[in-house]
Amino acid sequence: METTFRLTIGYHGTPYAGWQIQPDQPTVQQAIQEALTRMLTRPVTVIASGRTDSGVHAVAQVAHFKADTAIPAEKFQDALNSMLPESITIHACEKVPETFHARFNARRKRYTYRIINRPVAPAVSADTFWHIRNPLDIAAMKQAAAHLQGTHDFKAFEGTGSPRATTVRTLFEACVHDHGQGLVTLTFCGSGFLKFMVRNLVGTLVDVGLSRTTPGEFKAILESCNRQHAGATAPSRGLFLVRVAYEDTPHAPREFTDSPLYPAGLWLGPC
Amino acid sequence: METTFRLTIGYHGTPYAGWQIQPDQPTVQQAIQEALTRMLTRPVTVIASGRTDSGVHAVAQVAHFKADTAIPAEKFQDALNSMLPESITIHACEKVPETFHARFNARRKRYTYRIINRPVAPAVSADTFWHIRNPLDIAAMKQAAAHLQGTHDFKAFEGTGSPRATTVRTLFEACVHDHGQGLVTLTFCGSGFLKFMVRNLVGTLVDVGLSRTTPGEFKAILESCNRQHAGATAPSRGLFLVRVAYEDTPHAPREFTDSPLYPAGLWLGPC
Repeated sequence: METTFRLTIGYHGTPYAGWQIQPDQPTVQQAIQEALTRMLTRPVTVIASGRTDSGVHAVAQVAHFKADTAIPAEKFQDALNSMLPESITIHACEKVPETFHARFNARRKRYTYRIINRPVAPAVSADTFWHIRNPLDIAAMKQAAAHLQGTHDFKAFEGTGSPRATTVRTLFEACVHDHGQGLVTLTFCGSGFLKFMVRNLVGTLVDVGLSRTTPGEFKAILESCNRQHAGATAPSRGLFLVRVAYEDTPHAPREFTDSPLYPAGLWLGPC
Repeated sequence: METTFRLTIGYHGTPYAGWQIQPDQPTVQQAIQEALTRMLTRPVTVIASGRTDSGVHAVAQVAHFKADTAIPAEKFQDALNSMLPESITIHACEKVPETFHARFNARRKRYTYRIINRPVAPAVSADTFWHIRNPLDIAAMKQAAAHLQGTHDFKAFEGTGSPRATTVRTLFEACVHDHGQGLVTLTFCGSGFLKFMVRNLVGTLVDVGLSRTTPGEFKAILESCNRQHAGATAPSRGLFLVRVAYEDTPHAPREFTDSPLYPAGLWLGPC
């Protein structure tokens, strides 16, 4: 009799070629599957809410797996944490109804992108932000980001090589926040995201911040549905998957984010 | 005519075998000297306030070098930052009197050690703290740390293989702070530090926190001047050199520390 388990997973993205298994490259999915396979002595597949790109960090990625086991959920957490490298942490393991599916049941995802905008950036943990030397016009970026809220065809911000049934998505929140001293965060909360969508949005919003693009032109880029019109893909190092919400977890695990345990600025807003 | 330059340097310690040049291992000193040597087309020696161990981070290490050059100090900063990897940042380069010596003129140094004390720690930037699962008795650690203030022979906390004229040092501040959510910092501000002294103090204070040693026994360890009585050396990953003070810079570059740009807890106290 199989049980379904939900994992809440944090990872430091730098050493991994993203979430999803790749030939000959370390990935988060592979590390967790190998640990579970060792525990259960048979192959296990772990399905996440979605992929994250190479180098992207996660505060609370969600995944599920099925196993015919008598091991209680808490034991899985302890055993996995003792087997996994420090760059992957299991924050929770819960038994869930067998109908639970980490990808199909995900209702909302929240991403935060960290920028340090000053002539000189810290050397400490430089793989957790994008360093931009020239001053960003935050007011213009906020104005542009406001155009993103709601339901739109985000085709202009989709990476190539990932055909989808539809490129329409809903953003509940898209905001830019200036924390002072040069820390700027961009937060996106939405029903789902296309490949490279967050990083393409960030790259194009930074073009607005650097006055290469006006907020009005940004709106036109969104409406054009043409990737050629949008800006470059922002580096993955600044991107954090902060939460994934399901029907039964409408509220965010705020403990993990608005906290001195994490880089500043990961959490803002009610979404 | 040689000019003396003072550098204020931040580095992420993880990829380096410490500050000081080592055969066949990457070090911070080597990276900076190689960059300066390329700029000036002749060998340059950079002298820091002191070594830092392999894996130890620095928010504001100070060093000096001498060069017969017409290049202004600001240009050195820009040029070095463009040549150095992101794990090393030059925060300032200033022309100083030729009598300035980064090591001999240093008056005070401040170190902060970060601990995350909870059953499960974040995966993000796990190389910036020591994860301790069992609950620490912070009150006992504070009581023990109070014995460190003042002038003492710190021989019990000195690493081997580093004979010194004297093992007497003065600590102006030695404090333990609980930031909540499991973040605990230990801060030491002193006239100078022996080899491994901060990490040995942290390891022994953690023994107090885990009730392996009482605060009274901690005092006796200090007074014993016997390394065998002290605890293990704490891992280097949690240690940050936060500042080095000189006669002309009595106040700390607080901008670099009490800031959303750095891991939480690096700065506390007036020292």
